[in-house]
Amino acid sequence: MEHRHGFLRMFRARSWIKLVNEHVLRRHTPVAQERHRTMPARPRCVSVAFEPPGGRAEMAAGTTILAAAHSLGIELASACRGQGTCGRCRVNVVLGTVGSPSDSERAQLSVDELDAGTRLACQARVESDVRIDIPPDSLATTQRLQLEGEELDVELDPPVVALDVTLTPPALDDLRADASRLLEALEPGDLQIALPVLVELPERLRAEGWSARVAIHRPLAELLAVRPSGSPLLGLAVDLGTTKLAAYLVDLESGKTLARAGAMNPQIAHGEDVVSRIAYANTGAAARRTLHDLVVGAVDRLAGELCTEPAAIADCVVVGNTAMHHLFAGLPVRQLGEAPYVAAVSGALEIHTADVGLGFAPGATLYIPPLIAGYVGADHVAVLLATRTDQATGTVLALDIGTNTEISLTHGGRLWTCSTASGPAFEGAHISAGMRAAPGAIERVHYRDGSFFVQTVDNRPAIGICGSGILDAVAEALRAGIIDARGALARSHPAVAQKDGQAACVIVPAALAGHRRDVAFTRADVGEIQLAKAAIRAGTDLLLAAAGIGISDLDAVVVAGAFGTYLDVRSAIRIGLLPDIPAERFRQLGNAAGAGARQLLLSRVRRRAAVKVAQRAQYLELTTHPGFADAFAEATKF
Amino acid sequence: MEHRHGFLRMFRARSWIKLVNEHVLRRHTPVAQERHRTMPARPRCVSVAFEPPGGRAEMAAGTTILAAAHSLGIELASACRGQGTCGRCRVNVVLGTVGSPSDSERAQLSVDELDAGTRLACQARVESDVRIDIPPDSLATTQRLQLEGEELDVELDPPVVALDVTLTPPALDDLRADASRLLEALEPGDLQIALPVLVELPERLRAEGWSARVAIHRPLAELLAVRPSGSPLLGLAVDLGTTKLAAYLVDLESGKTLARAGAMNPQIAHGEDVVSRIAYANTGAAARRTLHDLVVGAVDRLAGELCTEPAAIADCVVVGNTAMHHLFAGLPVRQLGEAPYVAAVSGALEIHTADVGLGFAPGATLYIPPLIAGYVGADHVAVLLATRTDQATGTVLALDIGTNTEISLTHGGRLWTCSTASGPAFEGAHISAGMRAAPGAIERVHYRDGSFFVQTVDNRPAIGICGSGILDAVAEALRAGIIDARGALARSHPAVAQKDGQAACVIVPAALAGHRRDVAFTRADVGEIQLAKAAIRAGTDLLLAAAGIGISDLDAVVVAGAFGTYLDVRSAIRIGLLPDIPAERFRQLGNAAGAGARQLLLSRVRRRAAVKVAQRAQYLELTTHPGFADAFAEATKF
Repeated sequence: MEHRHGFLRMFRARSWIKLVNEHVLRRHTPVAQERHRTMPARPRCVSVAFEPPGGRAEMAAGTTILAAAHSLGIELASACRGQGTCGRCRVNVVLGTVGSPSDSERAQLSVDELDAGTRLACQARVESDVRIDIPPDSLATTQRLQLEGEELDVELDPPVVALDVTLTPPALDDLRADASRLLEALEPGDLQIALPVLVELPERLRAEGWSARVAIHRPLAELLAVRPSGSPLLGLAVDLGTTKLAAYLVDLESGKTLARAGAMNPQIAHGEDVVSRIAYANTGAAARRTLHDLVVGAVDRLAGELCTEPAAIADCVVVGNTAMHHLFAGLPVRQLGEAPYVAAVSGALEIHTADVGLGFAPGATLYIPPLIAGYVGADHVAVLLATRTDQATGTVLALDIGTNTEISLTHGGRLWTCSTASGPAFEGAHISAGMRAAPGAIERVHYRDGSFFVQTVDNRPAIGICGSGILDAVAEALRAGIIDARGALARSHPAVAQKDGQAACVIVPAALAGHRRDVAFTRADVGEIQLAKAAIRAGTDLLLAAAGIGISDLDAVVVAGAFGTYLDVRSAIRIGLLPDIPAERFRQLGNAAGAGARQLLLSRVRRRAAVKVAQRAQYLELTTHPGFADAFAEATKF
Repeated sequence: MEHRHGFLRMFRARSWIKLVNEHVLRRHTPVAQERHRTMPARPRCVSVAFEPPGGRAEMAAGTTILAAAHSLGIELASACRGQGTCGRCRVNVVLGTVGSPSDSERAQLSVDELDAGTRLACQARVESDVRIDIPPDSLATTQRLQLEGEELDVELDPPVVALDVTLTPPALDDLRADASRLLEALEPGDLQIALPVLVELPERLRAEGWSARVAIHRPLAELLAVRPSGSPLLGLAVDLGTTKLAAYLVDLESGKTLARAGAMNPQIAHGEDVVSRIAYANTGAAARRTLHDLVVGAVDRLAGELCTEPAAIADCVVVGNTAMHHLFAGLPVRQLGEAPYVAAVSGALEIHTADVGLGFAPGATLYIPPLIAGYVGADHVAVLLATRTDQATGTVLALDIGTNTEISLTHGGRLWTCSTASGPAFEGAHISAGMRAAPGAIERVHYRDGSFFVQTVDNRPAIGICGSGILDAVAEALRAGIIDARGALARSHPAVAQKDGQAACVIVPAALAGHRRDVAFTRADVGEIQLAKAAIRAGTDLLLAAAGIGISDLDAVVVAGAFGTYLDVRSAIRIGLLPDIPAERFRQLGNAAGAGARQLLLSRVRRRAAVKVAQRAQYLELTTHPGFADAFAEATKF
């Protein structure tokens, strides 16, 4: 949806609002009509309880169980994105009423299963308060989460440090207030104590016998927490993705990452991409508040998951694209959805967790690094930090490939950056057999001697194809002459068959697949890949043009993000997604944004670097760039 | 209650906790027993609606209508402090059920009135949801509120100033974020924008066509508000008294006080004095939260009463005694109620209104000046500012007389301060015919030729005697030989009669009073005045001793507070409450704390002075002072 939308935006920025409205109508009208047929006009509110992992959502009756799970950040296994075709989101309805089984459910589930209450979460709509049991196989725990990132290599110089202190108790001849007593014992000059810490201070000092460990934010000269002696000093780094959240618990004294956790972004119940979230937020203050509360609640839960005592977290760094950044901070997003798409604020936010409603450690500080533009967010700044692009002396191209792809080019001490609407094809969406990188997804494809050879996630029988797989498939098909330079399938080629009235290239036939259908790609699928790679390549080419250099000048290309980590560079070069330079100049990273966020927890120097790099970046707006249409058209070819 | 308690505290500080417990038991047991007899064991919650002025309280069944009114900050007329004897708090029960009339009500109201639903608010206990009509005469609008204070005389140098700004709108070739666009147009260096202002910024700038008036807090380098061009820049000064709240709306640009408003402190439903409020707060986090919410809600209402658009308020200054300060800021008070009675924080608080839950102007700053000790609060610092005691080069004594009296002495560039538990006698409490300075209260007494001559508030028939009246009465009785130097009534004196089995001095006989009883004072009443004046005088004497000077060295004596403004200095000197120096050396002020708070809104210099004076003050703890017992005993004599 955003994909098509994104391209139209490139050429017709003026039509944006109208498109957004159509988009919303397209998404919601069918559901609304269906509800109208089967349910009372005014949806009731019902309660949907899940176990395991536990959680209860209040939803409008008629909502799918999958949407209810998403609203809680529970990620169910799904290869078909809720189309009812993969049969992986099976759940058991323990209590309560759900609507009659859909045709998809009758096709995927046996009569016995249906009788026993087994349903597909993406199909079954709740009609009363229900209790849902999620079988272990249906929990998407095995899906790859991009949490690793690059190893951190920063000199430990955290903004927040701990100090141990022992006080003399008050007495009739020493009536100093608790705060003065503490500050005078610390003697670091002009410290302030955050109000939530003052609130806890009297009881804490007395409970701990006047010895304590305090957390101090050095640049802010602020005392953030008073903890029992010997407490650890922790930091939380969070990458707020549009689809997924990744959180890291960091020991601020050793610099070590102690734990990692991921979750679905529960906002997904209100739109899959930032454009639909902005449209939803614009429906009213309550909607914006809902999106804010959902993501803040999810971060609170991740903090609770990562450590038994989240109150030990003294500092947080949160990164995200500009829309996620604004929704998390409670800022309006209307102006992000209307030309010329400007942010409410682009500078670093140095606030408190309580300011955005995070509840786990009331005195903790919250740092949100600066962002570059409406579509180049604080997450990209974190990527630039993690990849050390900010310090590069040579010519470096950095790409964070996603639904929107942010690209930066460093050359001659300057930095250019742009955002390009590459769409979700490389995440497996809008591809007929596409799926996420879940078990059974084809992630590697090789064509040899007239046959396709595939590798699947977890070596399970193939049920679909994920981003790196479809990239390989197209590249191999191109190499083998199955498709031509315009992307058309060669009907005469033995690998091409007629399927459902159109030409298709079967990679794994139904007989071998873990599924009832062939895993194949069509001309339309190739078209989606062409549009996606053209958007990215046009952005790259325009940045090179802005710097007045060619691809042979590139010393390094850094590719971040989930797809960026798993893609085969040779395939990417072959289809023209990445520039054709020697393979050793490429570096593939995982969650670079998360790694950048962790750097920002651990180093004041890196915080200053974040501000500098954001200021230094020269943003290239592609929607109005005179060369974009030509560059894009040129790049659609193979 | 606090009175007796206060004195015991002087001599037996160790028994404090036990005393507090007894105190609580004494207050609550009779009510609890009565409820037990007449009502179900578990109190239900009922709704009490008032009109006019409008408002609804959720209270436990069995609560008096007066307590419900207090909880909403509605002040009903009362001369007897809820004893059921003055008959001034008449209300009409329009709907719902209240308990049977008490003996007091049967004595004060006719059968017709009772049949028509007229009741005394202090006696009638609600049993169901009720709707109460308050007749105009029963609203205490005519009671004197101490709001005037001294005229302000400060050089205008407010921390918060306004700037007008016009911006160029964003365009495709100028994509700066709204915040950057605004800050760059202001060019005042390193400004921060408060998060609540960022939240409103995009819509505000677009609604106002990119012109706006911004409020900037200069010392904090923070942008507090973005308002329509031409908006006024307002400040709110609040004096949080234990009994009453006084609020002033100040134009920060002209320095003028635009409006004043007063209200009862709604916390009064949970205890009349700070000791009982602390005891209540210590019953649990919810109780502390209740006290916090009540006073914050009352300040929100005052702001709404003072101006039609409280969002124009950019800065607030709030002063109060240490307990009120802590409850308002959400700080714990347990350590204030236990020896050695230390504050959680004594330094100035420079925070935001939103930090304490004030809702009227989310970005506004809130300044709470420093305090001196657990019983010498930020309100006394404000008094010292208003009276310019902080700048005095001579020898100045400043007294803020209340239930606790704070006294400061400036001499030779040094400043000593103490707090003394003078009790509520001078507010008319614990005096048999005592009442507040409401219409009908005797406020002046003169004895001549064997008769008492009185002046009453609003010249209404006398129904009781307020602080300045009882002070005069005792002073005149002393002069006329009706009482001796120990305070005993001379039974042989013609003004002394036998009344209800004890000697009494009748000031206005029942036949002339606006009431069924004589207005008289007894030996016990004289005793209360002796204890009160002795506490204040002992404090004064010990401060003088600390400075090594005598009363003749005093260049000036400043008396603040309601009683301090209305008292007759000659009477106060005669009974020994104030030192015997020439009358022209006395200055009597109204709400000096409120005036000091307004100075702090208007002048950065005065804020620095507040910090300095609080640091400079040398606190004299009387509870452990070796000389206190003797000084107190000596001062009880006339």
